Parts: sequence; structure tokens; C-alpha cells
Amino acid sequence: MTDLETRELLCELLRAFYVRGWVSGTGGGICALDSDRNMLLAPTGVHKERIQPPDFFVIDTRDGSVVRPAADAGLRPSECNAIFRAAIGEREAASVMHSHALSSVLAADLAADDHLAIRDLEMLKGIRGLTNHDTHLVPVITNTPREYELTDQVEAALKDDRFAGSYAILVRDHGAYIWGSDLWETKRHAEVYHFLFEATVARATR
Amino acid sequence: MTDLETRELLCELLRAFYVRGWVSGTGGGICALDSDRNMLLAPTGVHKERIQPPDFFVIDTRDGSVVRPAADAGLRPSECNAIFRAAIGEREAASVMHSHALSSVLAADLAADDHLAIRDLEMLKGIRGLTNHDTHLVPVITNTPREYELTDQVEAALKDDRFAGSYAILVRDHGAYIWGSDLWETKRHAEVYHFLFEATVARATR
Amino acid sequence: MTDLETRELLCELLRAFYVRGWVSGTGGGICALDSDRNMLLAPTGVHKERIQPPDFFVIDTRDGSVVRPAADAGLRPSECNAIFRAAIGEREAASVMHSHALSSVLAADLAADDHLAIRDLEMLKGIRGLTNHDTHLVPVITNTPREYELTDQVEAALKDDRFAGSYAILVRDHGAYIWGSDLWETKRHAEVYHFLFEATVARATR
Amino acid sequence: MTDLETRELLCELLRAFYVRGWVSGTGGGICALDSDRNMLLAPTGVHKERIQPPDFFVIDTRDGSVVRPAADAGLRPSECNAIFRAAIGEREAASVMHSHALSSVLAADLAADDHLAIRDLEMLKGIRGLTNHDTHLVPVITNTPREYELTDQVEAALKDDRFAGSYAILVRDHGAYIWGSDLWETKRHAEVYHFLFEATVARATR
Repeated sequence: MTDLETRELLCELLRAFYVRGWVSGTGGGICALDSDRNMLLAPTGVHKERIQPPDFFVIDTRDGSVVRPAADAGLRPSECNAIFRAAIGEREAASVMHSHALSSVLAADLAADDHLAIRDLEMLKGIRGLTNHDTHLVPVITNTPREYELTDQVEAALKDDRFAGSYAILVRDHGAYIWGSDLWETKRHAEVYHFLFEATVARATR
Repeated sequence: MTDLETRELLCELLRAFYVRGWVSGTGGGICALDSDRNMLLAPTGVHKERIQPPDFFVIDTRDGSVVRPAADAGLRPSECNAIFRAAIGEREAASVMHSHALSSVLAADLAADDHLAIRDLEMLKGIRGLTNHDTHLVPVITNTPREYELTDQVEAALKDDRFAGSYAILVRDHGAYIWGSDLWETKRHAEVYHFLFEATVARATR
Repeated sequence: MTDLETRELLCELLRAFYVRGWVSGTGGGICALDSDRNMLLAPTGVHKERIQPPDFFVIDTRDGSVVRPAADAGLRPSECNAIFRAAIGEREAASVMHSHALSSVLAADLAADDHLAIRDLEMLKGIRGLTNHDTHLVPVITNTPREYELTDQVEAALKDDRFAGSYAILVRDHGAYIWGSDLWETKRHAEVYHFLFEATVARATR
Repeated sequence: MTDLETRELLCELLRAFYVRGWVSGTGGGICALDSDRNMLLAPTGVHKERIQPPDFFVIDTRDGSVVRPAADAGLRPSECNAIFRAAIGEREAASVMHSHALSSVLAADLAADDHLAIRDLEMLKGIRGLTNHDTHLVPVITNTPREYELTDQVEAALKDDRFAGSYAILVRDHGAYIWGSDLWETKRHAEVYHFLFEATVARATR
């Protein structure tokens, strides 16, 4: 995939996520590595379904610095920068999406402790490495005033052995981070995790 | 933005709101200021998703009089006229939308008193000036037989210090008015408030 | 509107109704009068969102006979024939739609007696002649094995003074018939009644 | 219908199913017989809404062997192979779809025993051979680690006289298989069964 195709697919996925209510009200975000292993990062504070290929920032994943800004000088990079880089660094993710879906908020509400246990669903097989007989633990962290302040909790969850099989982190009252080894796996994981959240919420509230 | 572009964006947003069920059955409405600081106001009693750029009325925001009617002589201006002007005058709004979403009706049902308290949601940050630790009070007023009869309650809510941070007013059994400093902020606020209503209803009814 | 435009609009509305889940699985239907005051009637047993302008039957509203069949000889006219003509004859409707929406089934479930009472909703004003302070009675009839066997109950409901202000009839376990004085009013009434059904169900089940 | 048209319709239906959430996260599947009575089978592990006409495998329905692989050598045939062939062999189906809809999971949850009883719904008439007064029994089988391991249970359900009138099998925690005598009937049955699942779940949980 060329870097332009990556940028176009990032825009296409943002539009698809928007239609499902995962990135409404300018919330949520997405990134993917380009051919130089830099991170293409969406801007903050804009309507995510209207982002165009030149609107991404090129970010050095080692330190988060801007290698090349968006074409529009009025744009600023997403606050997801540090969290996205943590998933890339700790889990070899090549793409991360950030969801503001209501189902992710309601799923996190169900977690009494620091994780949500998901079980008895064939769709678990849509997560790399899982079978449908696994009980899958998704870490649930506590929301903070600023998004970058979540980074310590994100890194702790990523290093926690209980969550070694998880490709998602839920944030209470906020949403979820979901990643994969490329954009297509991130798309699949995003669709699967949202299904798992919806199913777990539906079963808990009937 | 030219006035024609404003009219086109108004039509585009009405179509987007229609898809979400916020302006169905000819209900709901929208306005925005043009380059002369007059109000472009959608017509009443028509299918909102089918409105075209020439269908807007140009309204003097000082007294509500029609500066230039819609191109189609059969159209009449929305009854939202006085309410929209109140938000423009009291809050420096440059665009207001009126929603008939079911979630706004159900959210207003939850208010025992004259307001709905929304808390513990990251999406609060999508409202200008709010943090995710705020408890956000949205005024809830009582429905009246005719829409213009809501104006006194709307003006009282707009002047009420408790609601100084709100960009929305809920109307029991009816819907919501939501505004912003331009059309894009109104779009963002509309998406965020509907999310907040849906989340608050979901949490209250599980 | 020319008869071709009427046929095209009938097809467009069927597609819109399908997207909302009102005419799925080949269920539901629609009709409108043409310029000769004959009824353009959709065929039965076909995927409603795929109907094309030549697929309608031209029906004499006095006796239900076929004035001109659909272009495709394999099509048969909808079983709604007699019911649609009853609404046209008793209520001066010029267009009727038949919904299989889940919300209409669940709304009919709420009726202990022979009607559903809808109140405290601004959207009542979307029904011709109603205010938002009215308690609106929608007749609820009992389902029968064949659709035409509903006709006696439909005619009784149409003649019942309690339901003189209703533009809809609910059928238990089945759906709803909704009409208007032209296709645009039928569209508006369909959107409004489905909203009223959804709101009444949501308020009853929280 | 030419074989190319069949392949195009298979792709179109996958896109339609995806929009409804029935084949998200690369889950679900579809097949149809071609003019040689071989089975056109979708590939596994790919985003189902993006499948193109050359992506189907041509499968011998007698033994499941690949007559002609997909054009892309990287694709593998769906694990639904044996189950789809069972429905084709036992029930003269010419097309089968596999749904991962949440409504099918929640409907299976309602079954205390080895079947779900569906009744009191007009939409039952959308299933070939049923009236709206029938109590329709849909078999519910138990999920297994691998999809092909479901085949014995599927075959037992297909041979069970109680389920002779069913065109669907529910799999606990997983989804449903739904078939018809051609692609159009499979589409109709898919829409009708999902409606029946949603209605049964809604009535059970209010």
C-alpha cells in the first residue's frame, strides 16, 4: 500500500466509523504507520468524517515529534499521540483507532474492577489468537481530565500479563482504544470489539 | 463561506439530521446567519431533508421581519423564528438547530425539576468550555401549544446563571434547541448533545 | 405530478421505508391515486425496495378490478387492495402505506382494548388536525390469516367516531396502515406515526 | 441469471447484510449454486462487504472439493463449506447465508431447550409454507470450537421432523444459518428471520 493509499483508507475508515456513531461530535481518532514507520495521525477537534488525505500529521513514533505537519497550518495533532505510540511500541501495532461509541461506555460501566470479562461469543474468534471458549479480559482504566494523562494507565495495562491477549483498552465514561497489526486488522478488531461490547451490555441489561 | 455555501451546508446538515431521526415527519429546523448578519431560516411544514438552497427565508434578527422570502411563494418561515433569534441575541449564536429526536424527549422525561444534570462522560468536552469532570446542567422547559409560545421560557433559561454554560435547551415531550458560534459548532454540539442524551437515558433505564 | 412521477415517487418511498425496516422481507406495501383517480398498487411477494415504475397495477377503486396490469406478467397485485380502497373511500385518502415495522407490532402489544392512546408528544402535531395536547386514539384490530379478511375490521374502525381523527390503523402482531391526502402527507404521517409508536413503546418499557 | 450475475448478487447481498450488522468483523458468509449446480462459496477471514465476483470458490457439493479456486491465490474457502452443503443436500437449498447478528445470539439465549418457538407474528408468512397462526420451531444447536464441527448437529436438526418447516438453524453464542430455494428467497428468509429474532427478543425482555 502506498502512503497515499494509507491516507485514503484512514479517511474511508473514519467515515465508516462515523456512520456507526463511533467518532461523532469530532470525537475519536485513528492512526497508521506509513512506509517509513512513522505514524500518520489524524488532527484533533475536527469533524472526523470530513478529514482528507493531506490532513494527517507525520509523527516520529520514538518521541512523538512532528516530522511533517498537516497541509493545513490551522490543524493540530490528536491528543491520542502518546497513547497510540504506546500501543505501537508495546504491542507492535501498526494502526490504532479510538472510539467514542456509547456501547464502549456502557460496557466499561459493567466492570466492577479493572477489567471486563467477555465470554461465550463466537465473535471472540475475530480477535487475533482467541478461541470462542476463551474468557477474554479487556482492561478498563479510569478517565482523566486530559487524554495524554491516560498514558501511564495505558502503559500499565499493556504490560499487564492478564491483558496480554487483548487488542483493546476501555476507558470509563469515555470509550476505547483498539489496534491491530495493520489497518485491516484494526478495522476487524474495531468491528469485533464493538460487537462484543454491545452483546455484553445487552446480556447484562435484559 | 459565501451565502450560497451557507445555504448548501444548511441543506446538507438537514439531510444528515434526517438520517439520524432528528428532523423526521417535517419536524425540527435549522438556521444560520449570513454575511449581512441576517438569519437564513428554513421553511415550516416541509420535509426537511428535501429543502433546497433557495427555500430559506432571510430574516432580520432584530425584529424577526422577513427581509427576503423564499423563492417559492408557497413556503412560510419556521415557527422557530423567535426562539432562534433569542439564542442568537442572548448567546451570540450564529446557528441554531431544532431537534425532534426521541432521545431528547426521553432525556427530558428524566428531569424531575427544571433541568437535566449530565455527568461522567468524556463527550462533555465536546461542548465549548466544558471539562469531563463538570456536571452539566441543561435547562428543561415545558411544552406549549404553539412553538412561539415557548419564547418566554427560552429567554428565561438563556438568562439563568445556572445554565450559562449550556448550548442546548430541552423541551418536554418535544425535543431540543442546540446552537453554536457557527454552523460547524452547531453540528458538533448537536452530535455531542444527542450522544449525551442517549447515554443518560441508557444509564437511567438499565 | 405526472403519473410517471407518481410511480417514481412510490418507488423512492418504498426504498426509504425499506432502509428503516418498515417493508423488509417483501412485507408491507404502498399505493397512490393517479390522474384518473385509479389506484396505483404495488405487487405482492416481491422485494419492495426493488420495485420499478412499470411494476404497479392500475386498480379501479370502486370495485378493485384491474384496469391495467403490471408490465411484468409474473406479478400479482398486493392483498392490500381492499384495505387500501377502504381508506380511500371512507377517508378521502389518496395514498396509503402498509408497514411491517417492529415498533408498530410492539405498540399494538401495549393496547389492552381496541385502541392505543398516544399523548404528551409534540409530534402529534404532525398528524393533520391534531394539537400536542390531544390524546390521540389509534384503532387496534386483530390479525387474520389472510390480509383481505382484515377489511371488515378496517371498515368498522374507519366508521368509528372515536377514531375519526386517526390516519392509521394498527393490526396486532402485524403492523399498521397509514394514509394521507397525497403521497407527501402519507410520507409525513408514516414518519410521525412510527415516531409516536417508538416513543410510546420506549416510555412504556423503561 | 448468469454465473457472473450470481456472483455480483452475492457481493451485493453481502454489502447489504454488512450494513445491517449481520456479517461484521469478517464474520458470516454466503453461498449460491451456479448453473452447473456447483456451490459459489465466499472466502474466509476477509471483510465480507469488500468481496468481489472473482473472490468466490467453486465447490463440488457432493464432496466439498474445490472445482475452481478464487482468482486470488491468497484466499481460502469459508469454513461454512460442510454446513452449507448439508442445507443444500437435505433441504434442496440453492443458497445459504450465515449471520453473526446480535439478534440471533440473543434469540438463541432465550431457548431453554433445543429450539426457539416463534409465534403471533404476521412476518411468519414470509417463511415459505407458514401461516401467521403457526408456532414455528427453529432448532438451536450448541457452538463448537471449529465451525465444521457443527456439521453433525446441523445434519441432525435438518433431519428432525419437528424442524421440517424451518429454513434456519440458530447456533448458541454464534449466529444463524438461513437458506432458500434461490438467492432471492434466501434474502427474504434472512430479512424475515432477523425480524422474527428481533421481535421475539423485544417481547421477551420488556
